[in-house]
Amino acid sequence: MTQAFPNWMAEIQARVERALSRRLPAADLAPCRLHAAMRYSVLGGGKRVRPLLTFATGELAGADPARVEHAACAVELIHAYSLVHDDLPCMDDDRMRRGKPTTHVEYDEATALLVGDSLQSLAFSAIAEARLADDPAQQLDMLALLARAAGSRGMAGGQAIDLAAVGQQLTLEELEFMHIHKTGALIRAAVLLGAGCGKLAPAEREALDHFGKCTGLLFQIVDDILDSEADSATLGKTAGKDAAQNKPTYVSILGVPRAHEMANQLRSQAQAALDPFGPRARRLAELSHFIVARQF
Amino acid sequence: MTQAFPNWMAEIQARVERALSRRLPAADLAPCRLHAAMRYSVLGGGKRVRPLLTFATGELAGADPARVEHAACAVELIHAYSLVHDDLPCMDDDRMRRGKPTTHVEYDEATALLVGDSLQSLAFSAIAEARLADDPAQQLDMLALLARAAGSRGMAGGQAIDLAAVGQQLTLEELEFMHIHKTGALIRAAVLLGAGCGKLAPAEREALDHFGKCTGLLFQIVDDILDSEADSATLGKTAGKDAAQNKPTYVSILGVPRAHEMANQLRSQAQAALDPFGPRARRLAELSHFIVARQF
Repeated sequence: MTQAFPNWMAEIQARVERALSRRLPAADLAPCRLHAAMRYSVLGGGKRVRPLLTFATGELAGADPARVEHAACAVELIHAYSLVHDDLPCMDDDRMRRGKPTTHVEYDEATALLVGDSLQSLAFSAIAEARLADDPAQQLDMLALLARAAGSRGMAGGQAIDLAAVGQQLTLEELEFMHIHKTGALIRAAVLLGAGCGKLAPAEREALDHFGKCTGLLFQIVDDILDSEADSATLGKTAGKDAAQNKPTYVSILGVPRAHEMANQLRSQAQAALDPFGPRARRLAELSHFIVARQF
Repeated sequence: MTQAFPNWMAEIQARVERALSRRLPAADLAPCRLHAAMRYSVLGGGKRVRPLLTFATGELAGADPARVEHAACAVELIHAYSLVHDDLPCMDDDRMRRGKPTTHVEYDEATALLVGDSLQSLAFSAIAEARLADDPAQQLDMLALLARAAGSRGMAGGQAIDLAAVGQQLTLEELEFMHIHKTGALIRAAVLLGAGCGKLAPAEREALDHFGKCTGLLFQIVDDILDSEADSATLGKTAGKDAAQNKPTYVSILGVPRAHEMANQLRSQAQAALDPFGPRARRLAELSHFIVARQF
């Protein structure tokens, strides 16, 4: 009998935590302070949404979980580096993350800068050092995909667009362009790397690519809705932060009802992309549901 | 007849400049400001010492220059990212580099942060997207080597040790440990990636590895000597900067005469490592000479 979703999720999260801990250099290895700060920044927090996507897609593609684990770590390390750099004073200037002081507050700015830089390198180590695919040429393609998703045409580029957008009126198209880069590119990579560890027909890969794109945007819209609703209801720590920083969001552009409507449409599109896979896509469908419900 | 060294060097430098320009996204491609800042940070300056090493080693290993070009770009992009981040206010706080304002001065800190991040991703794109070796598994090894050389066990780790060393008394061993990471790791990678694009026997690769290690340290000692001598002679713009920042150097630990002696010893070691190659190693020997003489 297949495992219930919450159990599966908890198991993957624990597995990813262990794998990240093994992958990160020990805190007593020189330079110790840098390594301790890297471990501080990555371990013991986060929902590991991207690794969950990688594992769910890997399962669908019949991939060996031992291979998927390396890909999942690589994606999470890129995500973790981006959080450390985004929190820096010259960026979002955040002092708390996941209930603890951000890396530059706990250590110092220079260390946080080097932590982010080193985590990015480590992500590429993770995906280059292990065997992820039977064909090494396919593994090179996976690596190129991750590098592109992380760079100026992907996540880092999305950050740049985000910075430029503060205080600006954006159209829905411009907002979407920003999020496709900032959040979408790495979520898409998480999905496609899981697929790359296994075997899929080109049409199946394309369907998953579409699922990944929809899920990336869906993730952001739900974020925006939660942020605005928490603002008007209970005042959570980071609630209403986007509005306070004068950042354009799906809610500020569309309003809450239309943002909800768009989230539902994207969710249907994401589910439709999974239909051809039947029960093989069960985990991905459950994950997609959880991203909307945010019940983790 | 073989080309004279200055001509060869000028040709490779121009070739690398063109290749980097092709590899960097166009400045009119969104996000335009980020892409313009990336081009500003990489193009039109620098001696391209690392790419020169990659090309010279590639030539020795009989590699196709078209392949070597990708490896050389990857190494130079890692170097360029490290300069942009090192110049940031939380690190060395430098306002001028290569005769023009540093990236965070010309643009802003957040953009400089994202430029460095994006250049690192681009380096891995450069080495993953093209065919560098007949065997893709060997190319994966080359990629893993670059990732390790860039990360916390390499260049970024060396930066962390450097930061911690300001105002400290270091032993010669500690200073060497720092430079083996900070400068040495990437120079060694430049040499080994050039070798990886061609074919070498394991013993030959090992000899080049030794050459790379010696050259990395040599490069740093010459830097320290030049810095201290410029200080007591003509006051160049960045001359005497290490002493002013109270950074330990080979000169501050050994004094000028013993630093010179150590440079000569390393140079002999580097040359000895090349002896088994005979005339095939001509370019590398010439480069090693130029690194000491700094006549470029």
